[in-house]
Amino acid sequence: MHYLVYLIGKKVNKYYMEIIQEYQKRLSRYCRIQLIRIKDQEQLSRKLAGREYKIVVSHRGQLISSEELADKINFWAMSNKSPIAIIIGAENVTGDETLAISPMEMEPGLIAAIVSEQIYRAYRIINNEPYHK
Amino acid sequence: MHYLVYLIGKKVNKYYMEIIQEYQKRLSRYCRIQLIRIKDQEQLSRKLAGREYKIVVSHRGQLISSEELADKINFWAMSNKSPIAIIIGAENVTGDETLAISPMEMEPGLIAAIVSEQIYRAYRIINNEPYHK
Repeated sequence: MHYLVYLIGKKVNKYYMEIIQEYQKRLSRYCRIQLIRIKDQEQLSRKLAGREYKIVVSHRGQLISSEELADKINFWAMSNKSPIAIIIGAENVTGDETLAISPMEMEPGLIAAIVSEQIYRAYRIINNEPYHK
Repeated sequence: MHYLVYLIGKKVNKYYMEIIQEYQKRLSRYCRIQLIRIKDQEQLSRKLAGREYKIVVSHRGQLISSEELADKINFWAMSNKSPIAIIIGAENVTGDETLAISPMEMEPGLIAAIVSEQIYRAYRIINNEPYHK
């Protein structure tokens, strides 16, 4: 599976970037996950190729548990949905699915860090491996 | 207001600690927030003085938005609930309230980073200040 994480936002705290990089490393044995920094939504629409399966992350989306994310990833893999574009920090973008981590609004960098942690956790669940750092 | 964040967990990623410290700095103009690392629940019960207002953070708790957290903080301040103990990473602890950030399970260190960010965001909302870093 190939994930393209589109992170919209001018400034991203370096600690969030370090967390994302750490999980990219840990995920390398399960999938390919790439972070793409985007300035604004105009640049986003130019970047999207059209053939990605688009997941918008928004606090207005559908709340899911870690197990439900693992189920979704399994389903996306089986139905050949790769590449998956995960869009963070965008307003009024329509995806194939709109998912929420929390009803709380958060900085896009923090959301990207959580998404990275949760994808890693999902692969540990899928592979029946204990979750640890 | 005085917040005591009890973080239960043997290992905490240093990047999460740096995020928590960054928000402690930013929050210093609004409140006092202190992180207390705890090894296990036994140590937690010894630490709690009994007179704190206890908030347990758990993925099984009540999901709230950033605005609802701001309302709660306002209410806690008005009803003299300080100090507030925020308990992260504990199982089967009964608090005065059990709140959730997400239905997703997360590392305690990540939850503490999110809680710090959300308390900061709440104070910006309460003080009618734009949210920025």
